[in-house]
Amino acid sequence: MDTNKLNRIVAKMKEKDLYQLIITDPTSIFYLIGKWIIPGERMHALYINVDGDNHFVINKLFPQEEDLGAPITYYDDVDDGVEVLAQYVHKDKPIGVDKNWPAHFLLRLQELGAGSAFVNGSKIVDKVRQIKSPEEAQLMRESAAKIDQVMDKLIPWVAKGLTERELNAKCLELCEEVGFSGPSFDPITAYAKGAADPHHITDDSKGKHGDCVILDIGGMWKNYASDITRTVFIGEVSERQKEIYDIVLEANKRGIAAAKPGAKMSDVDKAGRDYIASKGYGEYFTHRLGHSIGMEDHEVGDVSLVNDEIIEVGQCFSVEPGIYLADEGIGVRIEDIVYITEDGCEVLNHYPKDDIIVVPDGE
Amino acid sequence: MDTNKLNRIVAKMKEKDLYQLIITDPTSIFYLIGKWIIPGERMHALYINVDGDNHFVINKLFPQEEDLGAPITYYDDVDDGVEVLAQYVHKDKPIGVDKNWPAHFLLRLQELGAGSAFVNGSKIVDKVRQIKSPEEAQLMRESAAKIDQVMDKLIPWVAKGLTERELNAKCLELCEEVGFSGPSFDPITAYAKGAADPHHITDDSKGKHGDCVILDIGGMWKNYASDITRTVFIGEVSERQKEIYDIVLEANKRGIAAAKPGAKMSDVDKAGRDYIASKGYGEYFTHRLGHSIGMEDHEVGDVSLVNDEIIEVGQCFSVEPGIYLADEGIGVRIEDIVYITEDGCEVLNHYPKDDIIVVPDGE
Repeated sequence: MDTNKLNRIVAKMKEKDLYQLIITDPTSIFYLIGKWIIPGERMHALYINVDGDNHFVINKLFPQEEDLGAPITYYDDVDDGVEVLAQYVHKDKPIGVDKNWPAHFLLRLQELGAGSAFVNGSKIVDKVRQIKSPEEAQLMRESAAKIDQVMDKLIPWVAKGLTERELNAKCLELCEEVGFSGPSFDPITAYAKGAADPHHITDDSKGKHGDCVILDIGGMWKNYASDITRTVFIGEVSERQKEIYDIVLEANKRGIAAAKPGAKMSDVDKAGRDYIASKGYGEYFTHRLGHSIGMEDHEVGDVSLVNDEIIEVGQCFSVEPGIYLADEGIGVRIEDIVYITEDGCEVLNHYPKDDIIVVPDGE
Repeated sequence: MDTNKLNRIVAKMKEKDLYQLIITDPTSIFYLIGKWIIPGERMHALYINVDGDNHFVINKLFPQEEDLGAPITYYDDVDDGVEVLAQYVHKDKPIGVDKNWPAHFLLRLQELGAGSAFVNGSKIVDKVRQIKSPEEAQLMRESAAKIDQVMDKLIPWVAKGLTERELNAKCLELCEEVGFSGPSFDPITAYAKGAADPHHITDDSKGKHGDCVILDIGGMWKNYASDITRTVFIGEVSERQKEIYDIVLEANKRGIAAAKPGAKMSDVDKAGRDYIASKGYGEYFTHRLGHSIGMEDHEVGDVSLVNDEIIEVGQCFSVEPGIYLADEGIGVRIEDIVYITEDGCEVLNHYPKDDIIVVPDGE
């Protein structure tokens, strides 16, 4: 068990006056113990309380050889795992449970009267996970450097006549080539009409001369996610496309400039959004400006107008404004990941964005 | 909305004295409306009550063009979706929720006091899904026929020097070739030592002369799953391997013979298990005999000693006994899917199993 991370969780529990917590998300458990246990549909929990009386409850199918930093109680497929867990819970105190714990486990815990109240305890763990340690920041940096490499290798392929599906497959191949264990999300590679629809699903469309192409890709490096978006053009770029590109680029830069400790997450969204609106395209920027990122591509903590949480040193999130003109078949999005430092932020992605990238036909 | 399926759910609600139910599992919703809506992390629900006052609550990002058979209320990312749902709930009556509904939605519904009690409502939907209509049975039959084809094409590859990972990739390729939309689960292709461990994870092992090879594979055909296991041998089969094979084969047949309406699920398990025990290998058959199957590979309804539910016409489940001798590197499992008929069952898989299959080296 990583004592530093555990202590930060316990400190936050005390701050929120929550005595006890059940952590069940495999990623959060990995975060604490450095080991993946993937129990599938089976009950699996790390019980934590502020007095340090912590317990793992694990199905026998997942025997643990190493010390996990807390005693383990195993149960069998014919046992009731939640009942085993309930014996450690202080029944007279509220308990926090994982936001994604399947309802039937929670209902059973409630039926057993294990806890005086039941609350969403993930807010505490997710908040701690938001703040990256220097070691985690280094992995985020490495992951970003690798996805920059993938972007560089992928771009020439947009003008080689591949369908979106084929371009996606190529992206996955390149992710493997640079050493990622896999993608951090299904790649989005969209030509023209597809690029102009932020909810477009990859299909068999092919690119053609004059198309804009959105490439939104990410990989997993030593359990840390990267995520980058660039928009490039096939053969040539029209004045109209250039106009849109420049607005989105400036919005991306303004978002990055607003990303600093003490500001609100909503301030970052507003910085990008206001600029796009001032140019008359507010209604064509239809999503939040960004999302937190770490061991998962999308983590808790939106960069959106409704999130007034104060930004702290160590947070990582995306800044990804976009403009989508469905009628013209033009879509542009530019995304970088930032890491919050004492005096602003470090942009983790270094793939060029200032000069518009036009890929010669047939390259 | 499929009125017949809905009526069966409502009948079961009345039987269990449950006035209202929230269905959130995308597969169960597809089952009722014939349309996939995959809301990811967003709140999404079909509210049903026995008076037919049904409602969909759907995020605006998933606009529906067709009539879904119940009025739709859309909500926005800045709205509280659970609060929108709560307005339709009769607060003075218990409510059933989906077994896998993320805890934070359930906690919010409870906080809003929407329901006098909260229970696992999936048991009702899952029970109805167990009983296949003739149309569903036909799709299960077609899915089984296709996986039989994949098995036929896959078997020669076990003796061509591929690693398990490569053999898995080959299996996925063949699934695509026969027209499956994808696998119904990650294929298990295991040589010798791997075959002898029922929890083996696919690795880079290669097969060699004299190995047993377990092939446990399945595909998705028009939203219905198939699942079959055969054990084959590379180059030759030893007397010892043949002995084990014959015991497992007989256990598979006895399980199938016990699969009929009116029997208990546990009877089917017992039929296979008792035979294996009578031959002295009881302790080497370490898992349940089978699982229900339909729109998902593993559905609710185990074929196990602890499930005393009575088998009904229309159910589909697997019969898959195995013997795993870790010390000898021998593992054998033989699996077929059965469909329960008026007077017994129809075996959906037809790939041969009576004669031991030995694949010549290098074939």
